Amino acid sequence: MLLERDLIQSAGFRNVTEGGRVTGFQFRVRMPSYRGMAASLIDGVAVRVGGLVDVGPDVPLWTFGGRTFTLPELGDSEGVRWPLEEAAVITVPFDGGLPQGVHELTVELRLRMSYIPVEHQPTIQRVSRKVTLAPEGGDGTFRYGVSLYSFMGDYGTVLDLESALAHVADVGATGVEILGEGHVPGYPEPSPAWIDSWLSLLEKYSLEPTNYGSWIDTRLHPGRSMTAAEGAQALQRDLKLAHRLGFGFVRPKIGVVSSDLVPDPIWTEAVERSLDLAHELGVVICPEIHSPTPIKHPVVDDYIGLIERTGTKNFGLLIDTGIFQDRPIPLREGETRETRPAFLDGIGVNPADFKDIAQYVVFIQAKFHDINERLEDQQIPWRPVLQALKDSGYTGYLSSEYEGERTPWRAIEQVRRQHALIRSITAELD
Amino acid sequence: MLLERDLIQSAGFRNVTEGGRVTGFQFRVRMPSYRGMAASLIDGVAVRVGGLVDVGPDVPLWTFGGRTFTLPELGDSEGVRWPLEEAAVITVPFDGGLPQGVHELTVELRLRMSYIPVEHQPTIQRVSRKVTLAPEGGDGTFRYGVSLYSFMGDYGTVLDLESALAHVADVGATGVEILGEGHVPGYPEPSPAWIDSWLSLLEKYSLEPTNYGSWIDTRLHPGRSMTAAEGAQALQRDLKLAHRLGFGFVRPKIGVVSSDLVPDPIWTEAVERSLDLAHELGVVICPEIHSPTPIKHPVVDDYIGLIERTGTKNFGLLIDTGIFQDRPIPLREGETRETRPAFLDGIGVNPADFKDIAQYVVFIQAKFHDINERLEDQQIPWRPVLQALKDSGYTGYLSSEYEGERTPWRAIEQVRRQHALIRSITAELD
Repeated sequence: MLLERDLIQSAGFRNVTEGGRVTGFQFRVRMPSYRGMAASLIDGVAVRVGGLVDVGPDVPLWTFGGRTFTLPELGDSEGVRWPLEEAAVITVPFDGGLPQGVHELTVELRLRMSYIPVEHQPTIQRVSRKVTLAPEGGDGTFRYGVSLYSFMGDYGTVLDLESALAHVADVGATGVEILGEGHVPGYPEPSPAWIDSWLSLLEKYSLEPTNYGSWIDTRLHPGRSMTAAEGAQALQRDLKLAHRLGFGFVRPKIGVVSSDLVPDPIWTEAVERSLDLAHELGVVICPEIHSPTPIKHPVVDDYIGLIERTGTKNFGLLIDTGIFQDRPIPLREGETRETRPAFLDGIGVNPADFKDIAQYVVFIQAKFHDINERLEDQQIPWRPVLQALKDSGYTGYLSSEYEGERTPWRAIEQVRRQHALIRSITAELD
Repeated sequence: MLLERDLIQSAGFRNVTEGGRVTGFQFRVRMPSYRGMAASLIDGVAVRVGGLVDVGPDVPLWTFGGRTFTLPELGDSEGVRWPLEEAAVITVPFDGGLPQGVHELTVELRLRMSYIPVEHQPTIQRVSRKVTLAPEGGDGTFRYGVSLYSFMGDYGTVLDLESALAHVADVGATGVEILGEGHVPGYPEPSPAWIDSWLSLLEKYSLEPTNYGSWIDTRLHPGRSMTAAEGAQALQRDLKLAHRLGFGFVRPKIGVVSSDLVPDPIWTEAVERSLDLAHELGVVICPEIHSPTPIKHPVVDDYIGLIERTGTKNFGLLIDTGIFQDRPIPLREGETRETRPAFLDGIGVNPADFKDIAQYVVFIQAKFHDINERLEDQQIPWRPVLQALKDSGYTGYLSSEYEGERTPWRAIEQVRRQHALIRSITAELD
């Protein structure tokens, strides 16, 4: 398990309910010293939250290893430790709890260091951070998930598998999406030990495997294309592995043959050859409809054509909400509107178009790029999108795909904000 | 294992020797995509190093899973993969290899993405980074180690134990120093499984445990001090654990009773009560001489007094090279020279003083703060320090303690630079 770099962690910031009443809130703080220490060396923590909360250092409660202490109890404790590798859980009594959203949390943490002259004691750490309260609301309308794609760049550098799954669970998500060749060590043949650990982590964090991303790499070898038989083989390799890992959906990303992302024609035969296997395994193959391809497009018609023609229940559409983007992604340093693909300005598909294909849609990747601290998405118009999904009777997963700036640790907060935003809008839908 | 955030990794940048001749250099690159992929999708990598090396994309060799390939061999390969979690090893033939020091390494990496229109292919990543060649030289004079303290802030957020040990080994160090209550999960009672994994990691990376940092927390409970018996108990707990983990030195950090860091008087009795145990375990207790305490100081005299009085071989001095600092650490944001401790400007102990206590010194922590890309240390005068150590006959460890800016991943490069600097100076000493 890895902790976030900021002393104040995003994970674990939540309201606390006791006996059906919200009695306060809780957050986690990483040890500010270079060492772990006995918890009796803690001299308290003062906490402020915006203009809402302001409590002195002796008020909050501390939890270590599942046991909760007042400050005087900590001072008398023997053998209770705040380890370097574990964040302390701090609970602040606050009747009714905090409102949903992003809060500026300020702590003044006091520790007694034995090896610093007493006139400089206690050592005080003052830190502030904007963190998003664990999202609530919107239950029963959709299901909420996160794709580990959201953590691109962070995964393997600041997040390991367990830390990533812990963050997914901490937003209240129940589903997790992975990329086969990306999150499965030893792909395409993970060790039985790895599969065991994957399954036990899912259980530990109460997560369900949702969608598994795969590729049909039509340019696998230089100078030659892929046959339909090879494409089917690639797809079937991933269908089997996805099934072993508990997934019910597989999104094959298919090589393209045109500027507007028309898939290589081998896709039809590669998929049709794989439908029996998909049926046997109980897996649904679902290529994604991804910007710049809109809903009204021959590629979508072709996918629907296959469903109608074969009558299969093992093929469906995956919608990436990037198609609804109606404001541009800001230019990156050195990028000009002329040199980057036009679709990054947003293709602005009308959410109302969704109802025409809703019956074929099996999964939704909730693509987004930037949500500010007032929970305003800068690119995706969630209110009309979510209303259209609900009106069309979609009750499946909204699986977060953060695709914004890749500053380390940024995705963790962005995913929390997206879930807070989506769930608060959903709770208010007609 | 965790990778560094930059695509070009510091770890693994080294000259390559074949049959006694240096034939080129090697470095590692993290997968730039959000997925792992078949190695046949690689279209080559062009490499430049300052004005020294400039080779086209088809020249470098690629190593995956211990097998090395030319670019055409990769294109034909089946089942060879560049996983997301493993850096590719790139070897560039370059007769005689690169000179010691920091190099600007530039790569232009080409990958064939099947799902991007062919007119935008291959996808090209251009990145540059200043990286330090794996240090060489200075063998036989001193022994070289690293304290995991160097990775403060990184440890548990961007480095796990194995990644940290891999970085230590990659600088050519043979010794590793840890902090007991910091790097041992479950301290003071780690699980047998953890101890097994610690010992097997040491073996895997050919590292020897050197010094183990402990604390005698005299302010353990609010409002009362510690008895000598309690101090001895704390010290003995760590002596036993250090011994189980294979360490030969234990540095207890003792609570202080004055502004100039005079240790709590219980130290004498706490240590004397523990000498038999230290002898039995074959461990040497070595408190550190740390700025602002110079070599000529009553505290040092007292430590030496204990050695002379008891005739023990299980107590000695640990010198922190911060005492030789002769230029100030730059002020941090918001810090003024008036508000921060004066010793941060450097107490400038004369390296020649070392010879007076050399016979009692058992370990050296090579404290440093900032080394620039020309391998110039901004605070510590290594040439006279190393000359004084050599002249006094010191042949033990120089164990890096990086204590500079805590930007994530910065310490990794700083430790490489320090080893390169120390070893090149040592190779030139009289």
